[in-house]
Amino acid sequence: MTGPDLGIWFVGAFGSVASTTALGLAALRKGLAGSTGLVSEHPLVRQLPLPPFSRFVIGGHDVRRSSLESTVRELHRRSGVFDAELIDRCRDQLAEWTENVVPGVAQRSGPAVERLADWTQEQGNQMPPREAAERIAADIQAFRERWGLRHVILVNLASTEPPLELTEVHSDLVRFEAELDRPGSPAVPASLIYALAAIRSGCSYVNFTPSPGINVPVLTELAAKQGTLYAGQDGKTGETLLKTVLAPMFQRRNLRVLSWVGHNIFGNRDGLVLDDPTHKASKVKTKDAVLNQILGYTPQTVVSIEFVESLDDWKTAWDHVHFEGFLGTKMVLQFTWQGCDSLLAAPLVIDLVRLTAYEWESGGRGLQRHLACFFKRPLGVDTHDFFEQWRLLEEYVQERVTAQEKTARPQTAPSA
Amino acid sequence: MTGPDLGIWFVGAFGSVASTTALGLAALRKGLAGSTGLVSEHPLVRQLPLPPFSRFVIGGHDVRRSSLESTVRELHRRSGVFDAELIDRCRDQLAEWTENVVPGVAQRSGPAVERLADWTQEQGNQMPPREAAERIAADIQAFRERWGLRHVILVNLASTEPPLELTEVHSDLVRFEAELDRPGSPAVPASLIYALAAIRSGCSYVNFTPSPGINVPVLTELAAKQGTLYAGQDGKTGETLLKTVLAPMFQRRNLRVLSWVGHNIFGNRDGLVLDDPTHKASKVKTKDAVLNQILGYTPQTVVSIEFVESLDDWKTAWDHVHFEGFLGTKMVLQFTWQGCDSLLAAPLVIDLVRLTAYEWESGGRGLQRHLACFFKRPLGVDTHDFFEQWRLLEEYVQERVTAQEKTARPQTAPSA
Amino acid sequence: MTGPDLGIWFVGAFGSVASTTALGLAALRKGLAGSTGLVSEHPLVRQLPLPPFSRFVIGGHDVRRSSLESTVRELHRRSGVFDAELIDRCRDQLAEWTENVVPGVAQRSGPAVERLADWTQEQGNQMPPREAAERIAADIQAFRERWGLRHVILVNLASTEPPLELTEVHSDLVRFEAELDRPGSPAVPASLIYALAAIRSGCSYVNFTPSPGINVPVLTELAAKQGTLYAGQDGKTGETLLKTVLAPMFQRRNLRVLSWVGHNIFGNRDGLVLDDPTHKASKVKTKDAVLNQILGYTPQTVVSIEFVESLDDWKTAWDHVHFEGFLGTKMVLQFTWQGCDSLLAAPLVIDLVRLTAYEWESGGRGLQRHLACFFKRPLGVDTHDFFEQWRLLEEYVQERVTAQEKTARPQTAPSA
Amino acid sequence: MTGPDLGIWFVGAFGSVASTTALGLAALRKGLAGSTGLVSEHPLVRQLPLPPFSRFVIGGHDVRRSSLESTVRELHRRSGVFDAELIDRCRDQLAEWTENVVPGVAQRSGPAVERLADWTQEQGNQMPPREAAERIAADIQAFRERWGLRHVILVNLASTEPPLELTEVHSDLVRFEAELDRPGSPAVPASLIYALAAIRSGCSYVNFTPSPGINVPVLTELAAKQGTLYAGQDGKTGETLLKTVLAPMFQRRNLRVLSWVGHNIFGNRDGLVLDDPTHKASKVKTKDAVLNQILGYTPQTVVSIEFVESLDDWKTAWDHVHFEGFLGTKMVLQFTWQGCDSLLAAPLVIDLVRLTAYEWESGGRGLQRHLACFFKRPLGVDTHDFFEQWRLLEEYVQERVTAQEKTARPQTAPSA
Repeated sequence: MTGPDLGIWFVGAFGSVASTTALGLAALRKGLAGSTGLVSEHPLVRQLPLPPFSRFVIGGHDVRRSSLESTVRELHRRSGVFDAELIDRCRDQLAEWTENVVPGVAQRSGPAVERLADWTQEQGNQMPPREAAERIAADIQAFRERWGLRHVILVNLASTEPPLELTEVHSDLVRFEAELDRPGSPAVPASLIYALAAIRSGCSYVNFTPSPGINVPVLTELAAKQGTLYAGQDGKTGETLLKTVLAPMFQRRNLRVLSWVGHNIFGNRDGLVLDDPTHKASKVKTKDAVLNQILGYTPQTVVSIEFVESLDDWKTAWDHVHFEGFLGTKMVLQFTWQGCDSLLAAPLVIDLVRLTAYEWESGGRGLQRHLACFFKRPLGVDTHDFFEQWRLLEEYVQERVTAQEKTARPQTAPSA
Repeated sequence: MTGPDLGIWFVGAFGSVASTTALGLAALRKGLAGSTGLVSEHPLVRQLPLPPFSRFVIGGHDVRRSSLESTVRELHRRSGVFDAELIDRCRDQLAEWTENVVPGVAQRSGPAVERLADWTQEQGNQMPPREAAERIAADIQAFRERWGLRHVILVNLASTEPPLELTEVHSDLVRFEAELDRPGSPAVPASLIYALAAIRSGCSYVNFTPSPGINVPVLTELAAKQGTLYAGQDGKTGETLLKTVLAPMFQRRNLRVLSWVGHNIFGNRDGLVLDDPTHKASKVKTKDAVLNQILGYTPQTVVSIEFVESLDDWKTAWDHVHFEGFLGTKMVLQFTWQGCDSLLAAPLVIDLVRLTAYEWESGGRGLQRHLACFFKRPLGVDTHDFFEQWRLLEEYVQERVTAQEKTARPQTAPSA
Repeated sequence: MTGPDLGIWFVGAFGSVASTTALGLAALRKGLAGSTGLVSEHPLVRQLPLPPFSRFVIGGHDVRRSSLESTVRELHRRSGVFDAELIDRCRDQLAEWTENVVPGVAQRSGPAVERLADWTQEQGNQMPPREAAERIAADIQAFRERWGLRHVILVNLASTEPPLELTEVHSDLVRFEAELDRPGSPAVPASLIYALAAIRSGCSYVNFTPSPGINVPVLTELAAKQGTLYAGQDGKTGETLLKTVLAPMFQRRNLRVLSWVGHNIFGNRDGLVLDDPTHKASKVKTKDAVLNQILGYTPQTVVSIEFVESLDDWKTAWDHVHFEGFLGTKMVLQFTWQGCDSLLAAPLVIDLVRLTAYEWESGGRGLQRHLACFFKRPLGVDTHDFFEQWRLLEEYVQERVTAQEKTARPQTAPSA
Repeated sequence: MTGPDLGIWFVGAFGSVASTTALGLAALRKGLAGSTGLVSEHPLVRQLPLPPFSRFVIGGHDVRRSSLESTVRELHRRSGVFDAELIDRCRDQLAEWTENVVPGVAQRSGPAVERLADWTQEQGNQMPPREAAERIAADIQAFRERWGLRHVILVNLASTEPPLELTEVHSDLVRFEAELDRPGSPAVPASLIYALAAIRSGCSYVNFTPSPGINVPVLTELAAKQGTLYAGQDGKTGETLLKTVLAPMFQRRNLRVLSWVGHNIFGNRDGLVLDDPTHKASKVKTKDAVLNQILGYTPQTVVSIEFVESLDDWKTAWDHVHFEGFLGTKMVLQFTWQGCDSLLAAPLVIDLVRLTAYEWESGGRGLQRHLACFFKRPLGVDTHDFFEQWRLLEEYVQERVTAQEKTARPQTAPSA
C-alpha cells in the first residue's frame, strides 16, 4: 500500500472541530472508530468509490500556538468526550500532523479572535492581503511537496468573522486587485485571503463556517476561471438541521408556524468568540433565512446564542415552535437538543473532504451543489429543506453510479 | 349551484374527530374557516380539481346517543378549542347532519366501548355479522337516497378495537362466509362488519383507526372483486408524525439511535377507551414498526399511552431520543408535543374524503397508495418515512396534472 | 349588608393584570369564581379575619383610553382565557368600575409606553412632578369621596419603567423638593410621582412592578414620617417563583449550580414594552440577584426576555440548570413553564390588597415585611428563598392569631 | 492519628451505589474529592462535630461475585462518570475493602435478583431465616473484630424486593419467632433478615431502599427493646426530591394540581431489576403518597419507570404537572431531570452514616426522625415537604449545638 497522497489543509487547525476531525481520521485509519455519524458511510453514498481514510494527511494554519493532542485532551477533560485510551493510541499520528501546522493570519478576524491570537505570521494584521495570500500559498506548497500530495483541499474551520459588508470592491476585479495591496484592508478579511490562496494554489475549497470566504463575486469569478472545486457554507450540525427537518413537516401539513424561538447555549472557544457581539451578528444572520424559504412566509423568529461556560462543547438548544392548526387552534412543539458540537461537525468534515476528493479525481470543477445538505447556507442552492437537499445528493450518486456502470462494461455495447 | 351529491358516512359520528370534522366542514362551506391544516389546500394538491366543500353531506353510525353539536360544545368547554360563536353559526348545519346519524353496532368493540354504548341496533352484539352488515348497508342506502348522492365514502373513526388475531377464517372466503352467520362471532368485530357493508354497498372506504377494518385478506379480496376504492390505516397526527420526520434525519446522517422513548398522555374519550388494557395493546402495536423500518435496525423503544383526564383533547407527548454520534458519543434529542387531537385529525379526514372522491370520479379503484403520508400504518406501502410518502403524493399529483393537460388540449396533437 | 368601603386604586387600570383583577374580584363577589390561586384563601391565611371581597371598589389611572371590559375581552379572544359567559355576567360591575378610571401621567415612563399613551393629563409629560402628584391625589380624593371610602390602597401595575439612576437628589429631601418643581424632571419618573401622591393622600401603597416607586430614600423617609403602610416590589409570579423554590433545593443538598439559563418569551402589552431595550434592562436586573443570595456564590446566569407576539399572555419560560454533583459529575435540570401571566398575577394582587387592608385596620404602619413571598425583590427582606419568606408570613399569622385569641377572651383572665 | 474505628456494612456492596460510595469515601480520605453533594458538609450541618471520613471502613454482603473496583470501572465505561485517574488512585483502598465483602442471602428477593445471584450463602434461599440472620451477624462480628471497630452501621442498598404483604406474623412476636424457623419463609424476605441481624448484633441500621427492612411492627418493637438506632426509608435522590420541593410551591400558592405525570427511564442494574413487574410494584407504591400528603387532596398521578438500557446510570425523568390557576385557567409546568443515580445517592449514604455514627456516639437510640429529608418515605414523620423536613434537621442541629455550648462552658453556670 502506498502512502497518503491527499492533503487536508485546515484553517483553524488547533480548534475543536479540526482537532476532533484529526483524531477521528487517525482512529478510522487504525480501525479504532466505527462509521457512525459519517454520511460518506451511509449505504447511499457507499455506492461511490470514495478515497479511503488512509489516503489523507492533515496540515493547516492556526493563530493560537497549541497542538492537536492538546485540544482533544482539553475536550476530553472538559466535555467528557472520547476515551482517554483512544487519544493515547492516536497521539503519534496527531503529533505527526501537528508538525504540519504553521502560524496563520487573523486579518479582520474580529476582536475576540484577535484577543486569542498569539501565533500569527510576522506583521500579521498589517500585511497587504496579496502578500498574506502568497505566504499562505507557499505554506500549502511546502506541505504538498513534503508529502508528495496529488491534491490539497483547504477547509475553513476558523472562528466566525464579524459580518462583511459587500461593496463594489468585491465585485470589480480591478478594484479588488488594488485593495489586495492595501495593508490590513478591512475589505479583505482572513477568510477571503485564505480562499484566494486556495484558488491561486490549485486547492479545492470547503467553507464550513459562516464567514464569507469564497462567496464574494470576485472570488467566485476567479474560482470559475481557475476551475476551482468548492463547496459551502456553514456546516449544518444541530439546531438548524432540526429546523430544516421539522419545518418541511409543518409546510406539508399546511400547519401555520406563528413563531419559532430558538435559544442556543454552549461554552467552547467557538462560543466564546460568538459571545462577542461583533461576531454574533454573523451567526444569527445565517440562521434567519431558513424558515422563510421552507415555509413560504415569514413567521416571527427569535434566534439567540449565549456563551455558557460550564457546557463546554455540549451545545444545547431549546426550540419553541408555536403553530396554528385547523380552525385557528394554537399548538406547541418544543424540543431540546444536547449535542456535542465537535463530534457532530467532525464526521461531516471527513465526508466533505472525501466527497470533494472523489469529485476532483472524477474531473469535477466549480461549485458542488450536491453537497447542499451539509450546509446551513448552501451556495448555489435555493432550498433549505433537508430532504430536498438530500435528493440532490441522491441524484448525484445515482448519476455517478450509472456512469460507472457504463464505463465498467463498454465492451458489451458493440457486441449487441 | 346544485346541492351536495357526495356522502361522508362516519362510523363513530358523535366522537370528537367526526364531530370536529363536521364543524370544520360546515365552517368551510360558510367561509368561516381558513385552509390552515388542510393538506388538500396545500399548493401541491390544489393543482387537482378536488370537489369543493359544498358537495359533501355527513351521516353515520354511533353507539352513543348524542349529537354533533353536543360533542363540539363539550370539546369547547373542556379543551378550550373553537369559538363559541363559530359553533353558534354552524349549529343548524350540525343539527341537519345529526339527523343522518343512526344507531350502530359494537360487536367485539371491547369492554371500554361496550360500557359507553347506549344506542346500538337491536340485539346488537349478538346479531350474526351478515345481518349486521346488511342493516348497515340499508342505513347507508337510505342516506344515499334521501340526499340523492352520487357516491358515499365510509370513514372509520370508531374507538380502537382490541387486537384481532388473524386466523384461517380471515383468508378463506368460504369459512368467512360461514362465520358471518354465527351470531356475535369474535372473529368478525365491528370494524370488519362496517368494511364489509362498505364493500357490498359500493362505498369507498377510509380507515382512520388502528382497527383492522378492510385489512384482512378476505375483505381485501372482496374489495378487489368489487372495485372498492380504499385507504388506510390509522391517521398519523401527532407523535408518530414527528417520528417519521425525525427518524429519517438520524438515518441520513448515519447517527445511531440507541433508544427512543415516547410517553403520550391525553384525556379524551379515545384516551378513556385506550386506558383499558385490552384496547391499548392495539395502539402500542401500531406504533412500534415505524422506527425499525426507517432506521434499518432495531433500537430499544418504549411507547406508553396514559389516560390523564385533565388534559382532555390535548394530547401531550414527550419523546426522548438517545443516539450515538461519531466516536461513540452519546447525545440526546427530546421533544414535547402539545397538540389538540381532534383538530389535528379533522382536516386530514376532510383531505382524505376529498382525495378519495376525486379519485373515485376519476375512475380510480382499489388501494390508494398515494395517501400513505396520512397514515401510521399505510396499507400497501413499505416506507414510514414521511418525506418518501410525500413523494408518492407528489408523483400522483404530477401524473394527474400531466394527464389533465393532455386531455385539456387534444386538438393540438392532430394539427401537428 | 353595607356597601364597599375600601378602595383599590390601580396605576395601569386598563392593563391586563388590573383588568383581570377587576374581573376576578367581580366574579368572587358574585360567587362565580373559586378560591384557587388566592393565597389569602390558603388555610394558613384564612385564620385571619381578612376583609371580604364585597368591601372593595376599584378605580385608577391609565394612559391608554380603554375599559376594563375591553381588556378582558381582548385577553379572552387572544389568549383563550376566561369564559365568555363569565365576562357577560360581570360586565355591569366592570362598567361601573371603569367609570372610576381617569387619565394618568407617563412622565419618563419610557419610549414604549409613550408610544402607547393616548389618554394622559393635560401637559402630561412636561408638568412639574409636584403638580402631577397633586392632581393624582385630587383624583384619588374624588374617588374616596364619591364612594365614601374608609381607606384607599394604591397598587402600581403600570408598565416597567426604564432603570432610574439614583443620585443625591433621591436621598436629600431639600433637593428632591426642588426637583419636584422642575417640569418633566428625569429624576422623578411616574412611579415616584404616584408613590408621592399615595403618601401625601394617606393611601397605602403596593408596588407590583420593578419600577422604583416608593423605594428611593426620600420617599421611604416620607412614608415613615406619614405612617404610610407599604409593600413591594415586583410580583413573583412565574419563572422567578420557580427559581426561588428550586435554588434552595440545590443549596440544601450542597449541589453546585454551574450555570442557570432562563429564557422567557411572551406576547402581551407588557412584553411589547419590555421588548424595547430601554425597558428591558430594568426587568433583567431585578432577576439577577436571586440566585446569588440563595446559593451564597455566583453561578453564571443568563436571563433573556423576548417578545413573541403569538404567545399573547402565555408567558413561557425555559430554564436550563447545569449543576455539579459528587465527584465532579455534571447533571442537568430543565423546566418549561407555560403560565398565563395575568391570571397568575391577579389573585396575588387581590391577596395583597386584602392583607394590606387588614393590616391597616389592625393599626399597622410602615413596611410590610411579612409579604416578602409575593415579590421578586422584597423590600426590607434579605432572603429570596420562597420557603423562608413563607415562614415570615406564617410567623405573622401566628402572632396575629395569638393576639386575637388574647383579645377574644379577656374576661377569662380575671376569673383565674 | 489512629486507624478507622467505625464500620459501614453494605447490603448490596457491589452494587452501583455502594461501590460509588466506597470510591467517594476513599477519594475524600485521600483529599481527592471535594464536598459537593454532601449534606454533611453543608454549613448548617458542619456545626456538628461529625466523625471524619478517615474513621470509616467498609465491608458488606452481596449476592453477585464482583469487586468494588469492577463496578466503578463499569460505571466509568458505560455512564462516562468518574475520572479514570481517580479510580486508579483509589484502587488499593477499594481492593482492601473488597476483601471485607462476603456472600449474602437473597431470600424472596424476587425473580430478577435471583437471576443475577451467583454468590449466595450455601443453601441460601431455603435456609430458615433465623439461621440466615445468625450467619449474617457472625459475618458482621468477624468484620468488627478484624478491624477493631467501636460500632458498625448496616446500610441496606440491595435491589428493591417485591412488595411484602404484612400479616399478623409481622406484628406478633411469638408467631414471628416461629416463622423464623421455617425454611425459606415467604414472610421473611432478605431485607427483614438483615434488619434482624443488625438489631441482634448491636448495629445501627439505615434503609436506603423501598424494601421493608426494619419497618415491620415486630422488628420496630425489637429495635426499641434493643436500643437500635435506625433511619429510613428509600433514599430521595431525584424525581421525588423535586416533587417534594415543587408540590409545596403549588400548595402555598393555592394553585390546584390537576394531574402529575412522572415518567422515569434509566438503564442500570437497579433499573433491570425494577423492569421486572414483581419488583416495580414496590417502587411505584412508594412514590404515590407524596403528593396527597403535601397537597391535601388527590390529583391524578401516573408514575412510570422503564428500563432503557442505553441510559445506564443516567436516570432521566420527565414530569408534566397540569395545574389550575385563578378563574379556572389551566397551566403547565414540565421538567426533565438528567441525574446520575449513583452519584446522587452516594453522598447521601456518606451523610447518613456520618450523622448516624455521630448520633450513636452522642448516646442517641431509636428512630432518627431528623433525617427525614433524606428519604422518600421517612419513618415516623408525616410530612413529605422537603423544606419542612429540612426544618427538622435544623432544629436537631440547633439543639445539639446549644447542648454542646452548655457542655463546653459548664463552669460559667455555678458562677452565676
